[in-house]
Amino acid sequence: MGWQKTFTLNRRPKGCHLVTEEVLTHIRPGLEGVKIGMLYLFIQHTSAALTINENYDPDMDMALDKIVPESLDWVHTDEGHEVSHTKTSLMGTSICVPITDGRLNLGTWQGIYLTEFRHAPHQRRVVATVL
Amino acid sequence: MGWQKTFTLNRRPKGCHLVTEEVLTHIRPGLEGVKIGMLYLFIQHTSAALTINENYDPDMDMALDKIVPESLDWVHTDEGHEVSHTKTSLMGTSICVPITDGRLNLGTWQGIYLTEFRHAPHQRRVVATVL
Amino acid sequence: MGWQKTFTLNRRPKGCHLVTEEVLTHIRPGLEGVKIGMLYLFIQHTSAALTINENYDPDMDMALDKIVPESLDWVHTDEGHEVSHTKTSLMGTSICVPITDGRLNLGTWQGIYLTEFRHAPHQRRVVATVL
Repeated sequence: MGWQKTFTLNRRPKGCHLVTEEVLTHIRPGLEGVKIGMLYLFIQHTSAALTINENYDPDMDMALDKIVPESLDWVHTDEGHEVSHTKTSLMGTSICVPITDGRLNLGTWQGIYLTEFRHAPHQRRVVATVL
Repeated sequence: MGWQKTFTLNRRPKGCHLVTEEVLTHIRPGLEGVKIGMLYLFIQHTSAALTINENYDPDMDMALDKIVPESLDWVHTDEGHEVSHTKTSLMGTSICVPITDGRLNLGTWQGIYLTEFRHAPHQRRVVATVL
Repeated sequence: MGWQKTFTLNRRPKGCHLVTEEVLTHIRPGLEGVKIGMLYLFIQHTSAALTINENYDPDMDMALDKIVPESLDWVHTDEGHEVSHTKTSLMGTSICVPITDGRLNLGTWQGIYLTEFRHAPHQRRVVATVL
């Protein structure tokens, strides 16, 4: 009736990182035998996000820096916290992916991305739920 | 215990398009008899997105062009790919809508939008799942 | 097999407001006895959004005003409608939170936020679904 697991993604520097394969190593047991379902990935942090994007995408980190610049009149500026928090809310804390016949039903060009907003690499905890 | 269907939305030019009725023609069989549930719509593309917005909204496409301008220092610029990918991650690849007594439980002013970021119209595949 | 409830959040002025405790007062009965599940919160409005962010975050409202400025060439400008609608689509109309052993499985620093985009305070209806 449901499967859930909390796992940790490897530390990565600031940027947008393709993590589809790393995520699959953790969630494969949860996909087995699921004919129709949904996978939810929820990241338990406020300065990193999860998103679906093209498997090759070198520019999104640059664009996010332009959209949410460090030069705004931030009040709470230590370690660029507010910049990261705003980016997190724009990108989102969770993603939902349909499951069909035991596989993630992604489009041909789609992959799962970790967008890390902190300059210092951090381990990131993710709660995966399959319904 | 679950219903799933993949369907294609008609080709549309760049812009934000209200698609509630077109979506309903595809998913009505999945809503029948569902007293309490959720509908997930997942678009299998990286240069178009799904969102919930006001039924009449002519300005969002213009705003997105300002938020993610083509004039940034993009590396991967052919066909405006990176602009579209960044917009896709900002808007999101999926939406979740509650189902109540066999109907989508949207607010009075809410509709389902396809935001198409490519200039050339494309058919867009959507995976609908009801749980 | 599912729990659903529609409730109203208190009126709040424009800004980003932590509402975790207020949400919990409404949804606690739906979490009871749920070993593994998901909570979906869907806001039935197009000028307010829900997001997960840091429990203390004073700056996000300012940043959103810079990202989606009122000074763009909006067509539909009465009451700042279009500004609010665009912000709503960027932030998102719904959030998904994993449930583990009857509790929301949020990270240490995470809270649920209502981002109100209208200057005049409005009551906001939310449909909560637990699967």
